[in-house]
Amino acid sequence: MPNSATSACVLIIGNEILSGRTQDANLNHIALTLNEWGVQVREARVVPDVAAIIVDTLNEVRARFDYVLTTGGIGPTHDDITAVCIARAFDRPIVIHPDIEAVIRSRPAEPEIMAARMLMARVPEGATLIDNPTGGPQGFQIENVFVMAGIPAVMRAMLSTLADRLRGHAPVRTRNVTVHAGESTIAGPLGELQRAHPDVDIGSYPFFREGVYGTTLVLRSPDEARLDTVRAALVQMLATLDLEPVPNE
Amino acid sequence: MPNSATSACVLIIGNEILSGRTQDANLNHIALTLNEWGVQVREARVVPDVAAIIVDTLNEVRARFDYVLTTGGIGPTHDDITAVCIARAFDRPIVIHPDIEAVIRSRPAEPEIMAARMLMARVPEGATLIDNPTGGPQGFQIENVFVMAGIPAVMRAMLSTLADRLRGHAPVRTRNVTVHAGESTIAGPLGELQRAHPDVDIGSYPFFREGVYGTTLVLRSPDEARLDTVRAALVQMLATLDLEPVPNE
Repeated sequence: MPNSATSACVLIIGNEILSGRTQDANLNHIALTLNEWGVQVREARVVPDVAAIIVDTLNEVRARFDYVLTTGGIGPTHDDITAVCIARAFDRPIVIHPDIEAVIRSRPAEPEIMAARMLMARVPEGATLIDNPTGGPQGFQIENVFVMAGIPAVMRAMLSTLADRLRGHAPVRTRNVTVHAGESTIAGPLGELQRAHPDVDIGSYPFFREGVYGTTLVLRSPDEARLDTVRAALVQMLATLDLEPVPNE
Repeated sequence: MPNSATSACVLIIGNEILSGRTQDANLNHIALTLNEWGVQVREARVVPDVAAIIVDTLNEVRARFDYVLTTGGIGPTHDDITAVCIARAFDRPIVIHPDIEAVIRSRPAEPEIMAARMLMARVPEGATLIDNPTGGPQGFQIENVFVMAGIPAVMRAMLSTLADRLRGHAPVRTRNVTVHAGESTIAGPLGELQRAHPDVDIGSYPFFREGVYGTTLVLRSPDEARLDTVRAALVQMLATLDLEPVPNE
């Protein structure tokens, strides 16, 4: 992975992912979306609903990456502790945000229910909001940390509003070359090719599909011209091994 | 999450997960499997194919958790650096393991291809092997770290052989109660219930299915009797809110 790119860390907060109850679907969507915006996800963490762990992890990763995106833990129940933990990590008081309060109060409810819902209006002091196109309570941003819901449909809606705030460098582009050969067949010359072109990241991904072993080679770089150059060199290298790229891959 | 249980961290090594090319499927399977063995996954990390990051992360998590399970990066290409990184983290030389070598040499190949395959026979000195029921090269264990393939079918096969080596305490069991009510409706009394029964972890998971909003409450504990007690208290609490559990959930 090139180091020059704008970096992000995804922090997935929730016991349900670690217990296996829920299969995470957010990391993949965030990675693909941010890449289009020129931001590379360079690490992801899944942590339990434990305040000390959330606070320590957040403080570590917000110092190391350009952006941190969190998912989960912003509902109204006792296990929704994300907002409080983020306020603690930034050493700021937690306050009721009037704009989230307005969204919550627009749906009438009995006093106890309204009181529970109002927990979703809490943000660290000074946070700005992240719109929620699904109509529910908003997420929030504080410095380089973006706090979003865990429910995939809501997270995606929130993320879709952040294109202007999460701008990075040029998006990373890819070229894929698939061959019907195992990794070992190409490993030696492929390593040489990577050393000759260190600016283009070459990944090798073996597969077994419909009874056929193969390997997909993925070239990654923001520079389309360099990608075409290295792809041509790769195809030439494969030809010396009597291998031809599989068409339409 | 109860703190007394045997803990594990899953370390997912691979640019392809962070780029969004591949949706991870290993964490969920490991979490469910380990839970049956009485081991709780308490954190997961996804890191890129960068040696310094893999080494530092491994050294951090192997000190903090009872077990560390890694996936990915044990093939024969230049981006497969897991074995070398783990040897470096443990400050041990890397050696060719004769048993893996025997598996590799049992499939004849030309010298260059065999040389590439032999990279998969490298393990840190003193490592013990993890069987690979799919017939390919084995994984390995060194102290509390278990190193497995990234391809889900191979990882699952390797993990299935580890039941005796990854024994923990009693497996965590669950009781689910689903109601057709939003989280805010139950948040107050639910928080009181959690405070009254701190030994049983109560998770609250909202959903929107077939036009109906609802919440699934998940009780988690190794103690079946305590689960039944708290489930009964939960149902009683819900009755005071005129809510009945959805049958067959």
